[in-house]
Parts: sequence; structure tokens; C-alpha cells
Amino acid sequence: MHAVPGVRLGSAAAGIKAPGRDDLVVIELAEGAECAAVFTRNAFCAAPVALARSHLRQGSPRLLLVNSGNANAGTGRQGRQDALNICQDLARTAGCGVEQVLPFSTGVIGEDLPVERLRQAIPEALADLEPGGWERASRAIMTTDTHPKLASRRFEIDGAPVIVTGMAKGSGMIRPDMATMLAYLATDLAVESSLLQACLAAAVKPSFNSITVDGDTSTNDACVLIASGVSSLPPVTDADAPVYTRFAQAVRDVCMELARDIVRDGEGATKLVEVVVEQAADEEEARDVAYTIAHSPLVKTALFASDPNWGRILAAVGRAGLEELAIDRVEIWLDDVCIVHNGGRAPDYTEQAGALVMSRREFTIRVSLDRGSANARVLTCDLSYDYVRINAEYRT
Amino acid sequence: MHAVPGVRLGSAAAGIKAPGRDDLVVIELAEGAECAAVFTRNAFCAAPVALARSHLRQGSPRLLLVNSGNANAGTGRQGRQDALNICQDLARTAGCGVEQVLPFSTGVIGEDLPVERLRQAIPEALADLEPGGWERASRAIMTTDTHPKLASRRFEIDGAPVIVTGMAKGSGMIRPDMATMLAYLATDLAVESSLLQACLAAAVKPSFNSITVDGDTSTNDACVLIASGVSSLPPVTDADAPVYTRFAQAVRDVCMELARDIVRDGEGATKLVEVVVEQAADEEEARDVAYTIAHSPLVKTALFASDPNWGRILAAVGRAGLEELAIDRVEIWLDDVCIVHNGGRAPDYTEQAGALVMSRREFTIRVSLDRGSANARVLTCDLSYDYVRINAEYRT
Repeated sequence: MHAVPGVRLGSAAAGIKAPGRDDLVVIELAEGAECAAVFTRNAFCAAPVALARSHLRQGSPRLLLVNSGNANAGTGRQGRQDALNICQDLARTAGCGVEQVLPFSTGVIGEDLPVERLRQAIPEALADLEPGGWERASRAIMTTDTHPKLASRRFEIDGAPVIVTGMAKGSGMIRPDMATMLAYLATDLAVESSLLQACLAAAVKPSFNSITVDGDTSTNDACVLIASGVSSLPPVTDADAPVYTRFAQAVRDVCMELARDIVRDGEGATKLVEVVVEQAADEEEARDVAYTIAHSPLVKTALFASDPNWGRILAAVGRAGLEELAIDRVEIWLDDVCIVHNGGRAPDYTEQAGALVMSRREFTIRVSLDRGSANARVLTCDLSYDYVRINAEYRT
Repeated sequence: MHAVPGVRLGSAAAGIKAPGRDDLVVIELAEGAECAAVFTRNAFCAAPVALARSHLRQGSPRLLLVNSGNANAGTGRQGRQDALNICQDLARTAGCGVEQVLPFSTGVIGEDLPVERLRQAIPEALADLEPGGWERASRAIMTTDTHPKLASRRFEIDGAPVIVTGMAKGSGMIRPDMATMLAYLATDLAVESSLLQACLAAAVKPSFNSITVDGDTSTNDACVLIASGVSSLPPVTDADAPVYTRFAQAVRDVCMELARDIVRDGEGATKLVEVVVEQAADEEEARDVAYTIAHSPLVKTALFASDPNWGRILAAVGRAGLEELAIDRVEIWLDDVCIVHNGGRAPDYTEQAGALVMSRREFTIRVSLDRGSANARVLTCDLSYDYVRINAEYRT
């Protein structure tokens, strides 16, 4: 993990999660830092999501305030007031404007935010601020995650180092629509605001917006890209500049690594499976087919059982709603094993060959539709006993 | 169960399922009987579905041939030939035209139909034909079902009895699009062909087309309504006639009862939950919201745990894709307990009241959107360990 000059992180235990476990994070940005962000498109977006979006529009954020254990979603008017109160408290303590604080919450939906406990823990988090705080913070934002998720890249431009470091949390209620549960990336580079937003949007699409654990888009998804701007390099203002290309690639790499890690740590997951749909008429139908496979409970239980019950994949393709699908042209592959050819079992397919691929911890389901040149790629995981256990036990 | 004059059923064990378990059914119709049918809209519809549809267009069906244990789906050209061969064999043995035989299959996808075994068992099924064969046949068509599904109604018109009796199978891969896995209804009434089809379509919509277990539309769904026409009553040719109204209601009642029974017997299900969405702008969005709740793995695991974790219901409403949903107007109820009011937790809601409803084996989740007058009603079940066990073990 490379620390990011101009960004410090502090964590504390406010007592929302189990006693002694950190559940509060403050991220402090250098003066003049830029922030780009994408948020959930769930209509019931949480109170902090609405407030963070509003504060972001007013510019010049200095502090991000993140709590885990309570989502402050479905909490109506009280929730909005609570989010504002806690921002005001942090702003007062840190000496900045309330609109310079961006709030984020993740955890149980529908319970009031324990504002008093958060308030009491804020000084501890501020005292803990340090550039090396990423590791501790990445643990503090976890809910049902079994491990922290961090990724980091470093490259040089004209001999000057550039850092892109990120952390994310997420394990269940994962089918991001504009972002993932929570992800924070930061660079020391100065990047012009609209360019920073474009860079984030481009990186989020193939990463956080192409993964699913259970198809349930969260109320609290948010992904933030911070440019602290303390680098000695001149500000990036041109999308065609080599430095932007290098930077955008690093952001994308970090997002991809974090997104993969979220699915790998999907609730109860034992397998990481890439669903690739090729030769579709357009990208939308390619994604429809990929997500139909990736969400099918029957496909996901077959993945868990390492059972090459490919009829379930074929049935999912068939129900994805494609107009006039010529099923005789469909091919389906498990890694390099062709299982369906001309819409039926491939002549030289053997159960043994299918079972060998399915027994791998990571593999690819590839579907070729032979009706165009668009494609899509989605990451998913299996559906295991532990998914049911975790979600039947969580909260109760 | 009322037997239906003009309809006889025979069952046999062909050895596709476990030894000694019936897996072949022949349904014999009186000469001149009419058949209406609806089939799956899965693009990968099974070979027997395509053949039954084609034979039905040629009119005057006399025999339905149903096997369980093998779906003859995803079997390409060979599958189509197998379905035709077995129809030809039955037609020859019974002395009718091949186009008078309608084939149906249900079971594992992607394995070749064991034609020879079916052929050898056909004489046994024919010898077993009797009007009282419904009970045995309803067991023979089962796959992962834990109990047979039968429903029956009898009413009188001018002193003459009219019977509507039906059977169905289905437990997993349940999200019928035009019909359910397999359902067969029969009446002794004579009903004009287009009226019979209209009656079936109207009955299927609120019943088989409004249920889900796992969201996976099957490749083999079919629902058939037989009118044997042996009744002494005159043929029904008028949709406004009282006899049609009574008949249509009986068909709908039988379909509703069978559909409920399929969800109650959903794979691993411990709960039967009705999702009602009211005051939607149109029926499509009402169904979108209802199905988003009914399919959510997080809602379904909360149902299993009897945990009133209503934030998951709220999150599902929010991700259903409704444009400009005014969340402050949304209300959510568990039976008669209001949990969400004005888009947040209802003021007098208590966890205890929610838990009481969730502990019931059958209850209703009701969502009011306050943006129109359309509504929808969908039946679903919970997601339990046994769902994973059944689908991880089935076939392997």
C-alpha cells in the first residue's frame, strides 16, 4: 500500500459494530483537493448519499466521514437530520464548513443513526489521522466482509512518482448500479474536476458496475476518487495528455482489483466466475444475458456444487428476453471447453471435461450469440449454504 | 378429486427417475375434444414444446404423452427427432395419427431422451388408462416436488354437473412466463376452441404467471386445458353466457389453487408470501416492483429467518427501476402492520409486531406507491438452506 500525499485517514470505534471493532473513519484531504463521485441509483438512496451529493456540488470538500454498522437508510426525515448533525459536529471540531464534509454510511437499513456515539468517537478518529491509515480504515468500513480490500499503483512521470491507492468494502447487497457499496480512491496528482469525474466514470463501468453477488442494488453505494493535488507535477487538464492516460489506467486497475475482490469475498462465495457474452447485437443485450446468468439461483447453486449442469446456463440465456434469438447459433464455453454448439450439447463434450473446469475456484462462462459484435463481461460468485446463513443471521 | 368424463389417465415406470417410481403418463381424450395450451417463452424451449405446439395447430389431439426426469431440452436436432419418434410410437400403438399426440417432458436439461425405455413402458401406461387416474398421474409427473398437486371443482348448470379438474408439477426453475412447469386441466364441457384458449389465458395470468420460486423461467413450461365435450350440455360458444362465466371461474380457481401449491412446495420453501403492490402508475411497474421484491435473495433469506429486516424490502422497491419514484409517499405493510410510512419507519411500528407477522407460515407484503391505481399480486417463497442443498445435489 502506497500512502497518498495530501490524504490522511483516521479510524475509531464508536460502538455501532461489535465492541472494540473500528466503525468510524475520517479521511482528511489537503486544501484544494478535488473529489469526483458516483452514487447508487436506488430510489431509496440513504440520507448520507443525498447529503454527500449536495455537499459535493458546493465544492472544496476537506473531510469524508464514514461509518459502518448502520446505513442511515429508510430513516426518513430523522435520517436526513442525523446525517447533517454529524457533519456539523465534525466540521465544528475540525474547523471547516459543514458543506466541506461528505458523509457515508453502510450497514443495517432502517435503524436510526446512533449520532451521539459517533460524535463521541470523532475526536479519536481525528487524533488518529495519518497518511498510512489506509489499512486500518479499510477494516473499519467492513460489515459482512471477511477481509479488507485494498489496491495500489505507483508510476512515474518525468521522474516524479504518482500514486493511486484505493479501498473498498462490500460483500452482500452487491449489484452496483452507479458504484459499489463504498470505495475510496485517492491520488496525489492534481486533476481538473470534469476530467476526474470522467476518469472515475470510465473506471467504474467495467469494474464496480459489472459485478454482482445477489443482484440487490444497495441504498448506500458510493465511490469517490480524490485528487489531493499536492504532487509537484502540473495539474492534468487534457484528456489526451500521456499523464492522463497513465493515470486513468491506474485508476481503472485499482477499481478492477477492488471489484474482483468484492466478488471473491461475496457473502458465502467459494467461487469467482467471469461471465462473458460475445457477438451480441448491442451492449445492452450482452449485459442482459450476462446478468441473467450471473443472477440465476440455479446457475449459482450449480457453481457451488461444481456441477457442470449447463442446462441451467442455457435456460438462463433463453429467458434473458432477447428478441428472435437464433438458438441454433448459440455457443457456450466453460473456460476452453465447448459445452453447447449449434444450440445443443457439443458433439465432443464430456461431463468429465466440464466437471474439471467447474471444480476450479476461478473460471469463465462464455456465451457467443452470433448476432453482432458487442460484448459484456460480468463477475459473479456462487450461491452457497453460507450465503443463506449469513443473511438469515445478519441482524437477527 | 372429481374424475372428468371423456378423459382417462394412465401411468407407468419407464426407469428414468429412481427405480419403481412412475415417470410416464398418457392422457387419453374423447374423440372431438378441444385443447387450449400456453407454453414457455424461454427461447431455448424444449423439443417437445415445439412439437406439441405444432401438433396442436393441426387440431384434434387424442393423446398427451408426459415424461418426467428428462426435459429433452438443449438436445438440438437429436432431441427433436426423439420427441417425434416417441409420438410416432404411441400413435402406432394406440391407432391414431402422430399429429394427434402432444408430447411433454420435464426434468434434467441437456441429456438425451431415453426413447427406448419410454417406448417399452408405453403399453403399461395404456393398460392403466382410467378416469380415476389423476392421483397416480399427478405423482408420476413430479420431479423435485415433495407432494402431488391436484385441484377440482364441480358445479351444476340446469341440473347437469360440470367438472373442472387439474394437476400440476413444479418446485424449482419456477418463474413461468406463459405457463408453469406442467399443468393439465380438463372439463367434460364442450367449449368452442377460441373461447377455451381465452379462458385459459385469463386464468393463467393471475395464477401460474404470477408466481416465482427462483426467477428461473423453465425451457419446458406448458399448461393445457382440455374440454372433452362429452357433457350433455350444449357446446359453449358465447363468452357472455352464464355457463361460460361459471366455467371460467372454476378454471381460474383450479389454476389459483395449483399455482399456490407450487409456491408452497417451492424448493426448500418454508413460507408462502404474497407480494401485493398497489397504487402503481400502471400494471407493468406494479409487477416490476412485486417481482423485484419476490426475487430478492436478501428479502427471501430474511423471510426464511422470520426476520422483519424491512430495509431489504425497501431497498428492493428502490432498485425496481421506477422513474421519479416519490419515496416519501411509499408505504409498506406486513399483513396489517404498517412498517414504512412516508418513506421511513412508521412512527408506531415495533420490531415485535413485525416479527409476529414474519413468524407466520403465510403472510402478505403490501407496498403502496401512491402514484396511480394499478396493482399486481405475486406469490413467492423464502430462500432456505434446503434450496441450496436441493439444487447443489440435484443431478450430481
